[in-house]
Amino acid sequence: MPAEVAAAAARHGPVFVFPLRGFADRDYSAYRGESIRLFDPVGTVEAVKRHGASVVVLLGGVVKPSAGAVLETVKATRRREEIEALLEGGDDNVLRGVIRFLESQGLTVVGLDSVAPELMAGAGALSSARPDTASLDDLAIGRSMIATLGPFDVGQAAVVSGKRVLGIEAVEGTDAMLRRVRDQRRSGLIGFIRRRGRAAVAERQGGVLVKMAKPGQDRRVDLPAIGPRTLRNAALAGLAGVAVEAGQVLIIEREKTRETADRLGLWLWGFET
Amino acid sequence: MPAEVAAAAARHGPVFVFPLRGFADRDYSAYRGESIRLFDPVGTVEAVKRHGASVVVLLGGVVKPSAGAVLETVKATRRREEIEALLEGGDDNVLRGVIRFLESQGLTVVGLDSVAPELMAGAGALSSARPDTASLDDLAIGRSMIATLGPFDVGQAAVVSGKRVLGIEAVEGTDAMLRRVRDQRRSGLIGFIRRRGRAAVAERQGGVLVKMAKPGQDRRVDLPAIGPRTLRNAALAGLAGVAVEAGQVLIIEREKTRETADRLGLWLWGFET
Repeated sequence: MPAEVAAAAARHGPVFVFPLRGFADRDYSAYRGESIRLFDPVGTVEAVKRHGASVVVLLGGVVKPSAGAVLETVKATRRREEIEALLEGGDDNVLRGVIRFLESQGLTVVGLDSVAPELMAGAGALSSARPDTASLDDLAIGRSMIATLGPFDVGQAAVVSGKRVLGIEAVEGTDAMLRRVRDQRRSGLIGFIRRRGRAAVAERQGGVLVKMAKPGQDRRVDLPAIGPRTLRNAALAGLAGVAVEAGQVLIIEREKTRETADRLGLWLWGFET
Repeated sequence: MPAEVAAAAARHGPVFVFPLRGFADRDYSAYRGESIRLFDPVGTVEAVKRHGASVVVLLGGVVKPSAGAVLETVKATRRREEIEALLEGGDDNVLRGVIRFLESQGLTVVGLDSVAPELMAGAGALSSARPDTASLDDLAIGRSMIATLGPFDVGQAAVVSGKRVLGIEAVEGTDAMLRRVRDQRRSGLIGFIRRRGRAAVAERQGGVLVKMAKPGQDRRVDLPAIGPRTLRNAALAGLAGVAVEAGQVLIIEREKTRETADRLGLWLWGFET
């Protein structure tokens, strides 16, 4: 994903890439910049300034680093207590701390939507198929529910089918929620009778994945995103389509995402708020 | 659970048990009554009336029947389309249909809280330990969020830790949600650094499972419940305790549940609304 953003941003202006040592999963040597270390904020700021960059976008995850990267980082860290305090609040707090630090050093931190707006979902049909009335009803319920959850800083996504809420995402991620819905549908009396009692009846289909920004969400910290994998998991969960908030949700690998939706017979729809 | 309710109700008056053939998991021959068949509503009403029972409590699940039970049922069923239509709406709709039918036949359907109120959670400390201030803060957030979800007929339970919502239950069940929180905590950078970087630091602990009735919930159809397994899963998820809405949540195996909480060092708390 960082590679896609860098390529898109390069069409708007000069791009520098500072890959996180031990975490970056590909070679960015085609760009200016240099590799940096996790938990080396001073060195990072020096590197960014040395290259003359001033606007920073934080991209990619540090959730599953290599063991070596973590051990090296921990060994290199003197104030372990401070880092543990920072980590207490979860990933969001870590990123917010990083942003505060970078801005205190005179850098400007923005979301990727600022440097590569064309990667965000547009409005209307983003696939060949379009949602039917039943799907639009499910979408309305999901949107309303996610909006309601706003004050609790949770729930970027939900699955609604037949006006029934099948899943709400908290911290587990959209793919985990979709797998849960898939498993739910495969088990239980409903699926069971259908499969055994009448072989010709397909798995029950229908339902909508709704994905949108949390109210007041800091897009520099946490940008909702979908991609080909989201569409594949939605299909495995028996859903009819995926609805994303236009302008607020990143579509990773846009062309491949659309192709995946079309190939699997799902609709992909951008709704305006 | 049906056995526990029957035993409790027997202390208040005469009890008849009508086990669902192929689903009931134990012998109820100590009670008056006779076994009945799923999808045989007419025969069921006849049996209930023949024994002189008039108030009905529906108990137990039919989610994972034996294959034989389902096949027999499906074969015995003439109007398969009607049953499929009924099943479309999920378990709740099936039960609501059953209740409507039983009541149209002159029977009264009540929740188990009406016949065995002593099985419901009381208020205050239900274990030796009590929630601390941080836990009460998490509890307040969980309660408020579940109440907010009321109009969407979803979310009997949530996990909140350090004021952060880690899980919201939709249709997957509380145990599945707790397993998810456990897995979430075991993976990720935070757990990783803690385990590798400093062996003496225990797994991060804390957080609350909040379980309550949905607003307007029909207790004849769906009664929130916890039991020893809930406490074990809460402990595995690293939680500090479990909070249940007093008078609204069934405690299965009350004594064993309390013992499990005490043994695992968790608090169990009944809050009033």
